[in-house]
Amino acid sequence: MLAFANDYSKGAHPAILQRFIDTNLDPQPGYGQDAYSASATEKIRRACDCPDAQVTYISGGTQANAVIISTVLKDYQGVVAADTGHVSIHEAGSIEYTGHKVLTIPGHDGKIDAHELAEYIKGFYEDDNHIQMVYPGMVYISQPTEYGTLYSKAELTAISAVCRQYDIPLFMDGARLGYGLMSPANDITLPELAKLVDVFYIGGTKVGALCGEAVVFTHDNQPEFFNNRVKRRGAQLAKGRLIGVQFEALFTDDLYFKISAHAIEMAKQLKAALTEKGYQFFIDSPTNQQFVVVDNAKMATLKNDVDFSFWEKIDDTHTAIRLVTSWSTTEDEIEQLKQVL
Amino acid sequence: MLAFANDYSKGAHPAILQRFIDTNLDPQPGYGQDAYSASATEKIRRACDCPDAQVTYISGGTQANAVIISTVLKDYQGVVAADTGHVSIHEAGSIEYTGHKVLTIPGHDGKIDAHELAEYIKGFYEDDNHIQMVYPGMVYISQPTEYGTLYSKAELTAISAVCRQYDIPLFMDGARLGYGLMSPANDITLPELAKLVDVFYIGGTKVGALCGEAVVFTHDNQPEFFNNRVKRRGAQLAKGRLIGVQFEALFTDDLYFKISAHAIEMAKQLKAALTEKGYQFFIDSPTNQQFVVVDNAKMATLKNDVDFSFWEKIDDTHTAIRLVTSWSTTEDEIEQLKQVL
Amino acid sequence: MLAFANDYSKGAHPAILQRFIDTNLDPQPGYGQDAYSASATEKIRRACDCPDAQVTYISGGTQANAVIISTVLKDYQGVVAADTGHVSIHEAGSIEYTGHKVLTIPGHDGKIDAHELAEYIKGFYEDDNHIQMVYPGMVYISQPTEYGTLYSKAELTAISAVCRQYDIPLFMDGARLGYGLMSPANDITLPELAKLVDVFYIGGTKVGALCGEAVVFTHDNQPEFFNNRVKRRGAQLAKGRLIGVQFEALFTDDLYFKISAHAIEMAKQLKAALTEKGYQFFIDSPTNQQFVVVDNAKMATLKNDVDFSFWEKIDDTHTAIRLVTSWSTTEDEIEQLKQVL
Amino acid sequence: MLAFANDYSKGAHPAILQRFIDTNLDPQPGYGQDAYSASATEKIRRACDCPDAQVTYISGGTQANAVIISTVLKDYQGVVAADTGHVSIHEAGSIEYTGHKVLTIPGHDGKIDAHELAEYIKGFYEDDNHIQMVYPGMVYISQPTEYGTLYSKAELTAISAVCRQYDIPLFMDGARLGYGLMSPANDITLPELAKLVDVFYIGGTKVGALCGEAVVFTHDNQPEFFNNRVKRRGAQLAKGRLIGVQFEALFTDDLYFKISAHAIEMAKQLKAALTEKGYQFFIDSPTNQQFVVVDNAKMATLKNDVDFSFWEKIDDTHTAIRLVTSWSTTEDEIEQLKQVL
Repeated sequence: MLAFANDYSKGAHPAILQRFIDTNLDPQPGYGQDAYSASATEKIRRACDCPDAQVTYISGGTQANAVIISTVLKDYQGVVAADTGHVSIHEAGSIEYTGHKVLTIPGHDGKIDAHELAEYIKGFYEDDNHIQMVYPGMVYISQPTEYGTLYSKAELTAISAVCRQYDIPLFMDGARLGYGLMSPANDITLPELAKLVDVFYIGGTKVGALCGEAVVFTHDNQPEFFNNRVKRRGAQLAKGRLIGVQFEALFTDDLYFKISAHAIEMAKQLKAALTEKGYQFFIDSPTNQQFVVVDNAKMATLKNDVDFSFWEKIDDTHTAIRLVTSWSTTEDEIEQLKQVL
Repeated sequence: MLAFANDYSKGAHPAILQRFIDTNLDPQPGYGQDAYSASATEKIRRACDCPDAQVTYISGGTQANAVIISTVLKDYQGVVAADTGHVSIHEAGSIEYTGHKVLTIPGHDGKIDAHELAEYIKGFYEDDNHIQMVYPGMVYISQPTEYGTLYSKAELTAISAVCRQYDIPLFMDGARLGYGLMSPANDITLPELAKLVDVFYIGGTKVGALCGEAVVFTHDNQPEFFNNRVKRRGAQLAKGRLIGVQFEALFTDDLYFKISAHAIEMAKQLKAALTEKGYQFFIDSPTNQQFVVVDNAKMATLKNDVDFSFWEKIDDTHTAIRLVTSWSTTEDEIEQLKQVL
Repeated sequence: MLAFANDYSKGAHPAILQRFIDTNLDPQPGYGQDAYSASATEKIRRACDCPDAQVTYISGGTQANAVIISTVLKDYQGVVAADTGHVSIHEAGSIEYTGHKVLTIPGHDGKIDAHELAEYIKGFYEDDNHIQMVYPGMVYISQPTEYGTLYSKAELTAISAVCRQYDIPLFMDGARLGYGLMSPANDITLPELAKLVDVFYIGGTKVGALCGEAVVFTHDNQPEFFNNRVKRRGAQLAKGRLIGVQFEALFTDDLYFKISAHAIEMAKQLKAALTEKGYQFFIDSPTNQQFVVVDNAKMATLKNDVDFSFWEKIDDTHTAIRLVTSWSTTEDEIEQLKQVL
Repeated sequence: MLAFANDYSKGAHPAILQRFIDTNLDPQPGYGQDAYSASATEKIRRACDCPDAQVTYISGGTQANAVIISTVLKDYQGVVAADTGHVSIHEAGSIEYTGHKVLTIPGHDGKIDAHELAEYIKGFYEDDNHIQMVYPGMVYISQPTEYGTLYSKAELTAISAVCRQYDIPLFMDGARLGYGLMSPANDITLPELAKLVDVFYIGGTKVGALCGEAVVFTHDNQPEFFNNRVKRRGAQLAKGRLIGVQFEALFTDDLYFKISAHAIEMAKQLKAALTEKGYQFFIDSPTNQQFVVVDNAKMATLKNDVDFSFWEKIDDTHTAIRLVTSWSTTEDEIEQLKQVL
């Protein structure tokens, strides 16, 4: 069975496993105070060119989103997201579990539009009589989006400007950030991106780690007593080294970027194969997630050889499916996939 | 520096790391549906002699406690715990974060007393006029306790009987369960224990894993839609294999019990050394945590060579400290500790 | 200034004030155990023809909605509502404050459609793989809706059938229920309505009381320990008699229905006056809320003499406004309004 | 049956009912923006000598406590209270419902001790390593306490000083504040008291109103967007006038103080009668709640003629009961009580 269902079906990049072995018997303090987490943080600060960044390691994306959103929002505020945003539909209500509303605006191929965002927010500040409404207190975007699409530098700059005009923090979900940064369609660097947002996370789980997301508050803006807040939400590992070691490995010798680039190269080959075979794309994605429309008979056949994701029903005889490459996809797997397509 | 501060300062047992390597490139479904988690669950069911048990893997103890307590309690209920219980004072308010009160009764060396528990609960059922009170809806105990002490089989049987009389689930926090089961002072087996409680967890983080606790609902009593509830609380890992692989390793060839027994043997040697050197014990613990009273001058000296935990201030010149062994403690470390004591 | 801004700008119907005076020095138990609440409950049961109904008095609509939704929903569920529903946009996030998501489907003049509802719910039951989603666990409708419109008996029957097919409770917000029942466009009786829903509330605040909504669980289906749940949410008055006395008055000699009918008669006269003066209606409402489109110059003039509500901006020169009648609107006020229109 | 069970068994002071009648048809804006609330606020500011005070009207004490505590506390903080404090045991978990822990210290006849409070708080600031603990973020006291006792001016000054040293707001629950201020044992004025606390509420429900507590932030320190926060918690009445009118009446011509003084005079007569009859007091209370120990046979007899409250079981043959006077207690009722004692 060919593994194209997602980017988290295999274990970790071998360099990470090796690092576990090398550091295994070195005693370290718990709760994120270990030397490996500290070292990873220094490397991430340098990669982002954010010397004042504060970095915290969280075990997964749902948790990272909930921790960030609920510690940054004020009591009476909600988070603005695209109606297709992960936090609005695919987190089992984890944001609402923290007591806060997800305020949706229309997504366009997964992206929000700066102008529409401005119009939405402006409504709350034109008069002072919104006692019955949830105020927007944060803007959530994902890069790449849930549809594999990317915000351009110009788009991000415009969204960031809106957020700063209204003093609303901008949060970027980077669960697959590496795959975005290494896409040929990408026109923004990690330091540029870090300047435009107030908090983001660098995804590990989907980019070669066994678990872990590095939450980055970019300009010394981490909420006070953040460790207590994280612990209170059950999101603090006793062995913080588990994630620290992994991010230290990922940010040594550009490993994070190299394995992301590999996945993108594999996606390019996948896309070429799909195009060649005449598949119709559901959306034009420049990253590691590819979406195609197949007729249901073909889908049934494919299922025998390939693990892919159901995406959505198109009509009674057609379905959109998702094929995903990752740090672990091999050229051999692409070759085999070509045979069965 | 000698590592006796806690049982989570080092990495994982080498057999676990090896298992990561062996399984690394085998693609598996996410969110706990992987074959390793399934296999671990079968092994745990056998070890507990609970064929109907449902097992879920959670990344840490604070999270396991919060998930279990908040999914089992009804809206208007709280959880009863010893006033020294972890959930009542050392979880940064994570139970209250779920909206529920921790109802405390006096602890005796960390343990609650079945008779006192019965008296407490009975008060709520003698008349029907407790509209202003939080009803007890679960009883929380830890085995071993936060003080390293153990409930005997008779004590657990009595507590279990009280809970069943009032139809209140009994929950056992087993963050260090292995160290309890392997203590020479222990008189209850894992299957016997599993019969007396309704839900418990088998601690991995403190017993040789990098992370992870195996939450066991013992008799097909897991709350419905449990995966959704876990996800909603941010407690579901995309790569569920991370914990599944570890517990599969721990429950293969009795590894969990062997490494626990090793820690207990090391604790025995530690205790002998402390006794020999004339140290006064703060509490008589039969497990891997040892508590001694030292004068502050001695404590300052020890700090140069040994990592230990501050426990509590005794008086102006004396302090209780904690020394802990684990799966990774070596005879050599015990020898060196003897020198500096 | 003519009071047409809403239906809660004046005090209470005089019969209610008189009843306060008559009962004032009669000592009664607190927390809803008073004889007046008991008597009101009997009268409401009879009016609804629901002998097994359980009735609880809550001080306001936001609170009633939050209490009902959060005590009925299971942990992993959300409430389905029209995207224009009060609970989804005008309660300052009070539902999310209880940890639950409001799941929106499109509203049509404020109403949801039974077929669209069925399609939405069905999606969750066609396969069992919705671990990332919030399950629909209750359906919320308002009668009349936020736009003054009414569900017909056929529409309610269809929605109720969908809910019962999937075993999902149907909840009706009746903040203005009297004005709906007394509308000439209404084709359903209170007993018929009570048969179709699982829980609803009879609004007092907007129908002649100083405060209070009567929450009715129609068929002995009130969540257990409901008083404790209400108290836990801060929604229990010490002097429950405050609301009990009011509902006893409202359900004596059909007062609730008579004053609602009066408001509807006033709305009919208002509508006729607006039509005669050539105003364009924003929506065709058969109840006590009337919505018209005015040009902004006219709106500015009206403001000098009439209190009305801004509803929404239509375009740069036009605005939709709301004019509302109530139990307290007099023919004289309608006459005066005609002069200024 | 003689009504001595509590101070909320009857309706409202006649002057309040009269005020309802006088203001009934005056149209007013909703949600606390009415002229009566504004007028009441001015009168309360003057009575407290706090020109910058912000006053909000909340329908009951449980709700007032939950709103105040949860809007003032930071995410990672809890509220310190006496272990006998209302918020710790008699609010059905309403504080925990907001996600926050009640941190208890020993109560002495219902009061906390400034020195013990300082010791408790100091522990959190002596080192920075309390990642597992809930930080104290507010101190809760009640005046009079749940046992009818009073803090002296010296005691309050000392507690206030501790709070200010650590920058922790001091909150006073004044559900029965009038009865405290008018007690002959009281040595502090309302303005003096208002200077020492950061937020408190003036109880109406138990002091002559049908419902309502006036929440006073004493020095322009009300949390921003407070109305939205109140609404989000379901605590905002559409007809804010309901409470505004009542507090306007209570703070006109010193009504609040006069009716409180009356209740204290009645309590004095009650106390004298109890003493004369040889009853043993459970606690020495200088306010309107009196606690006596009776043998169970006597208690059974009393029940035939008097409504009192069960307080607690003393031993197998004795019980502590509570007898309470209020604004509505008459000399005649005291006389009759004397007969049956």
